[in-house]
Amino acid sequence: MSTFTPNKSLQVDGWLDAIAWNEQSLVPVIAQEAGSKDVLMMAWMNRDALLETLRLGEAVYWSRSRQKLWHKGEESGHTQKVKEIRLDCDGDTILLLVEQKDGIACHTGEHSCFFMQWDSVSSNWQKISKS
Amino acid sequence: MSTFTPNKSLQVDGWLDAIAWNEQSLVPVIAQEAGSKDVLMMAWMNRDALLETLRLGEAVYWSRSRQKLWHKGEESGHTQKVKEIRLDCDGDTILLLVEQKDGIACHTGEHSCFFMQWDSVSSNWQKISKS
Repeated sequence: MSTFTPNKSLQVDGWLDAIAWNEQSLVPVIAQEAGSKDVLMMAWMNRDALLETLRLGEAVYWSRSRQKLWHKGEESGHTQKVKEIRLDCDGDTILLLVEQKDGIACHTGEHSCFFMQWDSVSSNWQKISKS
Repeated sequence: MSTFTPNKSLQVDGWLDAIAWNEQSLVPVIAQEAGSKDVLMMAWMNRDALLETLRLGEAVYWSRSRQKLWHKGEESGHTQKVKEIRLDCDGDTILLLVEQKDGIACHTGEHSCFFMQWDSVSSNWQKISKS
């Protein structure tokens, strides 16, 4: 059951301390499509990214390559509307349940970033046509 | 469609280089229940853990706290039978689809480790009864 509504005036508070930020002050975030339950991608958040996500109601990550906040879809249009946010037992991973705009999460144009699959016959990774 | 079968004699080879191991030579691994599609947990693998997973057909992680291979369920009995292994577009995250023995993935006895949920009313994390 979704209990999430964005809160534009949410302030930094003790709830941020429930998260076991890593040595780079980041936490891994799994994005799962709320309807299909497909795992779409994994990305990272810092405190500002999580705060922005909660304020905006859309996924905002920390881009490690560009070293800046990354409002997912800001260029592609493939935004992720947050339906639910979960935290794991030891506070070191976040799970976002999202509505994926256009159903495309991956920068390659695929639905999910997880479109390579281990193939036991060839003992190698193979692209799957439908991810 | 699952294409995974364990291969006891699988050797180290180029397929390991498809993975973008991090600076600690680890890769994050998302475990998702194959039937329910629930995200169960996030853990880490090094090369040996992935090789053992592929050989055994059950999830073997690298325990960062204990600094050793961790055959999930070796003590609790809550093993994870691998149905499918996926890799993401930039090779830096693995997704395992598993059959979770007894339906319990979390060391707390919960089905999934993601049993804390953001509650917009209290602006804090709340335990959910059914994860």
